[in-house]
Amino acid sequence: MTPTITAFATSPDRGKGLARDMRVRWALEEVGQPYAVRLVSLAEMKQPPHLARHPFGQIPTYEEGDLILFESGAIVLRLAERHMGLLPDDAHARMRAISWMFAALNTVEPPIVERSMAWLFEREEPWYAQRMTVLEARVHQRLGELSRRLGEAPWLDGAFSAGDLMMASVLLRLGSSGLVDGYPNLAAFVARATARPAYQRAYAAQEAVFLQSQPAAGTASA
Amino acid sequence: MTPTITAFATSPDRGKGLARDMRVRWALEEVGQPYAVRLVSLAEMKQPPHLARHPFGQIPTYEEGDLILFESGAIVLRLAERHMGLLPDDAHARMRAISWMFAALNTVEPPIVERSMAWLFEREEPWYAQRMTVLEARVHQRLGELSRRLGEAPWLDGAFSAGDLMMASVLLRLGSSGLVDGYPNLAAFVARATARPAYQRAYAAQEAVFLQSQPAAGTASA
Repeated sequence: MTPTITAFATSPDRGKGLARDMRVRWALEEVGQPYAVRLVSLAEMKQPPHLARHPFGQIPTYEEGDLILFESGAIVLRLAERHMGLLPDDAHARMRAISWMFAALNTVEPPIVERSMAWLFEREEPWYAQRMTVLEARVHQRLGELSRRLGEAPWLDGAFSAGDLMMASVLLRLGSSGLVDGYPNLAAFVARATARPAYQRAYAAQEAVFLQSQPAAGTASA
Repeated sequence: MTPTITAFATSPDRGKGLARDMRVRWALEEVGQPYAVRLVSLAEMKQPPHLARHPFGQIPTYEEGDLILFESGAIVLRLAERHMGLLPDDAHARMRAISWMFAALNTVEPPIVERSMAWLFEREEPWYAQRMTVLEARVHQRLGELSRRLGEAPWLDGAFSAGDLMMASVLLRLGSSGLVDGYPNLAAFVARATARPAYQRAYAAQEAVFLQSQPAAGTASA
C-alpha cells in the first residue's frame, strides 16, 4: 500500500530541504518505498482535518491504510522497522541506532532550533548579540561532543542507519551559519549523508514542490 | 540480568524528580524490572568513563550486559519493547504510542526547556520580561493543542503507555509555574500519572539519593 505523507504547500525555507517532511522523504527513498504527498497550506494545518492527523498542526504526517502517524522520528522509525536498510539486524546495534535518533531530536536539535528562532525573531532586538553568543556556545558544546564521538568513523555506529539520517538532518539546519565547518569530521559526515542517492532524490522531490509553487518567470500571478 | 542506570550524585533539582533518570526509573517500576544505580558527579559526567557511555556527558544511561544505551527516550523504548505494560500489543496502537513519545521529546519539551533556561539564566537581564512573554506563549500553544487532543480521555491514546509516561514527565518540568493549571484536563492527566504506584516508587528512590547526599541536620559538613 502506498503511504501518503503531508508537506508544506509553500515551505518557509523555499525548497532548501529543511522542513521535517525531508526526513521522511529521505527515509522512504532509502528503503525504496514509493509514496504520495498531500500538500497543506499554513491555514489548512490548523484546521480540523489536519489536526485530526497531527494534534500540533504540523507536518509531516504519515498515512498507511488506517494507520495515521505524526512526528518525523516516529515515522522514520516505522519505516525502519518495516523495511531493510535503516536499522541493523543485531538487536543491540538496533537499539544504539535508535539512541542516536533520540539524541538528534532531543539533545542536538533543540539548541540548533533555539539559535534559528533567535535569528528569525530577535535580530533587531538590542540583546541579540549577547544572546547569540550564549546560544552558539550551546550549539558548539553539542557539536564538539558529537565530533569527539564520531572521530574518523564514517557513521555514528557502524553502517549508515536512521540515527545518521536524523543527525545529518538536524545538522543541516545549521545551514550557512558555518558552525559545522569548525568540525571537519562533522562537515564530512553531512557531505557523505547528502551525497547519498536517496537524499538527492528526496531533496529534488521537495524542491520541485517549491518550484511549482512559484509563478513562472515573466508571468504575473493571477 | 539486572540493568544499571546512571543518575546525578547531586541532582540540580534537589530531589524534585525532574532529572531525566526519573523517566527511566518510572518505566522500570512500571514493568517491574529491578535495577541498580550508579551515581555520577557533575565532574565525572564529563570524564572518559562516562563519556564512553554517553557521548554528550549526560544522565541517564542504561547498561544491560554488553548493551549500553543513552537518551531516556531510547531507554524507555527498550524497556517497553522487552516487557509488558508500556506499549499496546496492537501494531498500529504501538506506533501511535511511540509518536507520543517523540512528540513529548521533540515538540512539547523544547519550549518548556527554553522557558526554564531563561528563568535560570536571564532573570536579571533587562529583556527578561519581554522574552518570557514570548516563551510562555510558545508553551501555551503546545499545551492548548495537547489539551484539545486529550479532551476528556484519561490517557493520550487508549491505555496508559510509554507515550503518556514521557508526556507527563515533560509537563512536570513546568513545576510550580502554574502554566498547566490553565488546562484542567492536563492537570488531571499529570495528577493521574503521578498517582501511579510505579511513579511513586520511582520518585521516592530518586528523592532518597538527594536526602542521603545532604549532611544530617545539626551536623557540620567535614
